[in-house]
Amino acid sequence: MRRTPVLRHDAIDALAGARVFVKAESLQETGSFKIRGATNRLLQIPAAQRAAGVVAFSSGNHAQGVARAARLLGMPALIVMPADAPAVKADGVRADGGEIVFYDPDTENREEIAARIAAERGAILVPSYDDFDIIAGQGSSGLEFAAQMAEAGETMDTLLCGAGGGGLISGVALALEGVSPQTRIWTVEPEGYDDWARSLASGRIEANAPGRRSVCDAILTPKPGVLTFTIGKRLLSGGLVVSDEEAKNAMRVAFRYLKTVVEPGGCVALAAALRGLPESMRGGTVGLLVTGGNVDADFYADVLTTA
Amino acid sequence: MRRTPVLRHDAIDALAGARVFVKAESLQETGSFKIRGATNRLLQIPAAQRAAGVVAFSSGNHAQGVARAARLLGMPALIVMPADAPAVKADGVRADGGEIVFYDPDTENREEIAARIAAERGAILVPSYDDFDIIAGQGSSGLEFAAQMAEAGETMDTLLCGAGGGGLISGVALALEGVSPQTRIWTVEPEGYDDWARSLASGRIEANAPGRRSVCDAILTPKPGVLTFTIGKRLLSGGLVVSDEEAKNAMRVAFRYLKTVVEPGGCVALAAALRGLPESMRGGTVGLLVTGGNVDADFYADVLTTA
Repeated sequence: MRRTPVLRHDAIDALAGARVFVKAESLQETGSFKIRGATNRLLQIPAAQRAAGVVAFSSGNHAQGVARAARLLGMPALIVMPADAPAVKADGVRADGGEIVFYDPDTENREEIAARIAAERGAILVPSYDDFDIIAGQGSSGLEFAAQMAEAGETMDTLLCGAGGGGLISGVALALEGVSPQTRIWTVEPEGYDDWARSLASGRIEANAPGRRSVCDAILTPKPGVLTFTIGKRLLSGGLVVSDEEAKNAMRVAFRYLKTVVEPGGCVALAAALRGLPESMRGGTVGLLVTGGNVDADFYADVLTTA
Repeated sequence: MRRTPVLRHDAIDALAGARVFVKAESLQETGSFKIRGATNRLLQIPAAQRAAGVVAFSSGNHAQGVARAARLLGMPALIVMPADAPAVKADGVRADGGEIVFYDPDTENREEIAARIAAERGAILVPSYDDFDIIAGQGSSGLEFAAQMAEAGETMDTLLCGAGGGGLISGVALALEGVSPQTRIWTVEPEGYDDWARSLASGRIEANAPGRRSVCDAILTPKPGVLTFTIGKRLLSGGLVVSDEEAKNAMRVAFRYLKTVVEPGGCVALAAALRGLPESMRGGTVGLLVTGGNVDADFYADVLTTA
C-alpha cells in the first residue's frame, strides 16, 4: 500500500471550527482505500485455489481494488458493476485486466449475479465489506492515520469516516481501539442512506428505504453488514448525515484548499466537518478520511462551476 | 514544510515509456514549493529588521509563500502582483494577511514598483529566485525527493523540473549533486519561454522575445537568473519545451490518474514525460516535480472538459 498523506489547511479549520486533519485515501493506489482490504483478502486465498480467480460486485472502488490485487497475485478477476457506474471506475478495472459484467441496478440483483458466476467458474466471491479480512485490510488506514498523527504530536479527539457497508469504519475503529482509544468515531452518510446513523441510534441493523438517489455512489448500500455492525455497535459513537449539495461543496473545498480530487461519496466526512460540527467536536482535533477520488471529469467540472 | 508525497500510476508509465515518479509539491503548504525558499529567506532576516516587513513580486505562488512565511514570523508582507493573476493566488495572499498592490503587466515594471515600495517602507525585498537562500530553500524538495526514492529502493536516472527563473531547479540540482549524482537533470518550459533550453544550449543567458503568451503563469520569466544559471550551466543536461495544450493534457492526466489538482505552469515536467521523452530517457526511471496546484475553478473545469 501507499502511505497516503495527511493534509490540512487553515481555511478548513476556520470553516469547521476545529483543527481538521484529512487523510487522503483518494491518493491511494487505484484511487481509494479499497485496495487495502482487497489485497488482504486475496492474500488469504491458498495458492491452489488462485487459478479459478475471484468475483466481486461493486460500483467501482472495491472493483478496482480487487482487479489490482488479483493482477498482482496473477489471478483472473470478474467484477459485477452497475451500468451507471462512473466510467473512470470501469476503465480502472479494465486497465488492471479485470472482466466486467454490467447489471441494471433498478431491476437486477448484483449479489445473485455475482454468486451465479462465481459458482459457474469455481471462483471465490470477494465480499465488499462484511468479511474479517476485508475489515482488517481497510483498518490499516486507521493504524497509519494514528501513527501519522502521533508523529505530528497530535491526538485525534474525533474521527469522521464515510460509511456504506462499514468495512472501512469498522476496521478503523478496531485499529484506533488499540492505538488511539481516546478517539470518538462517527459515521457520515448521505441523506436517504443514513442506515448507520439510525442503526447506531436504535442498537440494531436498520435498512434504508428503497428508491432514494444520491451522487455518493461509493457508499450507497442497503444496510450495515452483520460483522461491521457488530463491531460498530461497540466502538462507534454515532452517525452524521450530509446532503448531496454538502458533498459537492466538500469536493470544491478539497479542490481549492487541499489540491486533491475527491469523489462525492469519498468526501462526506469532510462535508460533515464543513456543514457545522456537533458542539462536542468543536474546538477539538478532528481526523477525517477522504476515501476516494474516482470521479468522471464532466461531473467534476460541473461541480466546480456550480456553487 | 510538509513532506510532499511521491505519486505514480501504471498508465502514466505506459504513456511515457518510462518509470515515472511524481513529487507533488502541489500538496505543499500554500499549494506550491515556493514556501520552502520564502521561509528559508525570511528566517535569515535579523530580528531587529523584521518589523519593517518584506516586499515581493510574483504572479502568485512566491507571493503566497512569502505571505505565509511572513505571517509565521510575525512580519508584515506586501506583494506586487499582476492584475491578471489567478484569483485563487490573490485570495491565498490575503488569507495570510498579505497586502497586495496590483500592476498592469503590459505597461508597468514590477521590479521598479516593488523596489520603490520597499525603499519607502524600509522593508526587505525578497527576490523570487536569484538568491542563495531562496535557492537553498527550494532545493530542500530535491533532498526530500532523493530520500523518498532511496526509501523505495529506486534511483532516478533523470529528473525533469519546470523552470521560470530557475530557483527550484538550481536548488534541486545542488541537492542531487550531493545525494544522487548519477541523476541527469533537465529543465522544462512552455513554448515561447524556452530561455533555459536556449541558454543551456548556447552556454550563456538568453532572453525570451517579448509579447508571447502562455497559460503557464507560474513560470513566465524573461530569462534565467545570474545565480541560478551559473549553477544550472554546471549541473543541468539540457532543456525540453512543451505547448500550452500539452500542459493542459498533463492537468487532465494528473486529475485522472494521480487525483491531484495541478496548475498549468506546475505540470510542464509531467507534460514533457507524456509528449514523448527523448530516446536517452526512455525505459529509465524518471523523477519529476509537479510544482503547484493554484488554479481557478473555472479554468480548471474548462481544461477538464476540453480534450
